Amino acid sequence: MKILIIYAHPEPKSFNNALKEKAKEVLEGNKHEVQISDLYAMKWKAVADKADFTELKDPSFFKMQMEQKEEKMTEDIKAEQKKVEWADMIIFQFPLWWFSCPAILKGWFDRVFSTPWSYSWPKIYDQGSFSKKKALISVTTGGPQPMYQERGLNGNLSKILYPIMHGALYFCGFQVLQPSYWFSPAHSDEARKMYLSQWEERLKNIEKEEPIKFHKMEEYGQTGLPEDKENDFEILGKTN
Amino acid sequence: MKILIIYAHPEPKSFNNALKEKAKEVLEGNKHEVQISDLYAMKWKAVADKADFTELKDPSFFKMQMEQKEEKMTEDIKAEQKKVEWADMIIFQFPLWWFSCPAILKGWFDRVFSTPWSYSWPKIYDQGSFSKKKALISVTTGGPQPMYQERGLNGNLSKILYPIMHGALYFCGFQVLQPSYWFSPAHSDEARKMYLSQWEERLKNIEKEEPIKFHKMEEYGQTGLPEDKENDFEILGKTN
Repeated sequence: MKILIIYAHPEPKSFNNALKEKAKEVLEGNKHEVQISDLYAMKWKAVADKADFTELKDPSFFKMQMEQKEEKMTEDIKAEQKKVEWADMIIFQFPLWWFSCPAILKGWFDRVFSTPWSYSWPKIYDQGSFSKKKALISVTTGGPQPMYQERGLNGNLSKILYPIMHGALYFCGFQVLQPSYWFSPAHSDEARKMYLSQWEERLKNIEKEEPIKFHKMEEYGQTGLPEDKENDFEILGKTN
Repeated sequence: MKILIIYAHPEPKSFNNALKEKAKEVLEGNKHEVQISDLYAMKWKAVADKADFTELKDPSFFKMQMEQKEEKMTEDIKAEQKKVEWADMIIFQFPLWWFSCPAILKGWFDRVFSTPWSYSWPKIYDQGSFSKKKALISVTTGGPQPMYQERGLNGNLSKILYPIMHGALYFCGFQVLQPSYWFSPAHSDEARKMYLSQWEERLKNIEKEEPIKFHKMEEYGQTGLPEDKENDFEILGKTN
């Protein structure tokens, strides 16, 4: 497979970097091709604004989606879009900051996933642009695992990641794999070693994994999903 | 009350700006004091990194939380922290981008909500730093309301906002009010007029509103929330 790693951590000595390096090593060792977008090293521009376009259709009233349709985006955005087009799978490696991804990665979604390139009604979810591609989130947390359970203090981590997994990735068609969660790596050398070997084991056969079974567009009626089906939040809640 | 509006939209002619201006007008008309952080106008730095500190305890290994404890943050961060300390209530005004806030606002949380100023174990949730303050999210969407219902295509908008409402705001103690949702304002002049008058009506008596009743720390046992209680995700699901 062709695998793109989107990596968002400011410190090269971090465990996030170790996970990213381990992924590169294992995947290349298994004859996959790997590209990495190291957002901090690239000084990725996080903030979506007028400056993302080389020319504006309406400079007096900035409507981002309208401008995106003109496809006059800056080179940094186009380069990322080419990497996404190239990839069969994208791995997102980041620390959980405020129960979401760091702003630099949020800004990657805001700026790179333009319309109609990444989505356009009704080509969303299983009908979306990237329905042949897979996506895998690998995330570290500060808090320990019990805090992120269904009835834990912070709530179910899979549901916390719904806006990214379902909202950004599945929305654009991606087949979303079960995330890899690395709880509290900062507090134990032993945990970090174990995590790296678990990560290695998982990645060795990553191409055989089945995605989370979110509902398809055709399953929704005019009033939404039929009452006898679990919704995608509930499905995510069981992947943890 | 002293009210801080955190506003994140790149276009002054946007409906988000109209909502922000309406809030200022109505709140000041009702003798509240208002401050506004217009993140785009301020060219707010979204990306948390080493440059957020005037001095580093360990320049060779950047550990953000450890550095935050030294309290040598740059002036832009300290200025926002002073505004938060000043405020009795914070209103967050933003468009829903990729089922979350724009990166510039995510970066406001990443950089401003430092430890131990905004939280430190076990002073979180109802025990958190800002437990005397209120927070109110006002968010616009591209898609229509039915897509954001419990069984709609996108899922329940309140649950989609869990990472911000529960994860960032309640985590630091804020009393979180029911959000205001403005669905698809771009598509109808009439809707925008109606929304502005609904917003005005709500804000006239905002100081009397009760917050969402998330669970308190003391309600959690060693294995989490007792099985006979609805968890905070479920509580949020009913606020939509």
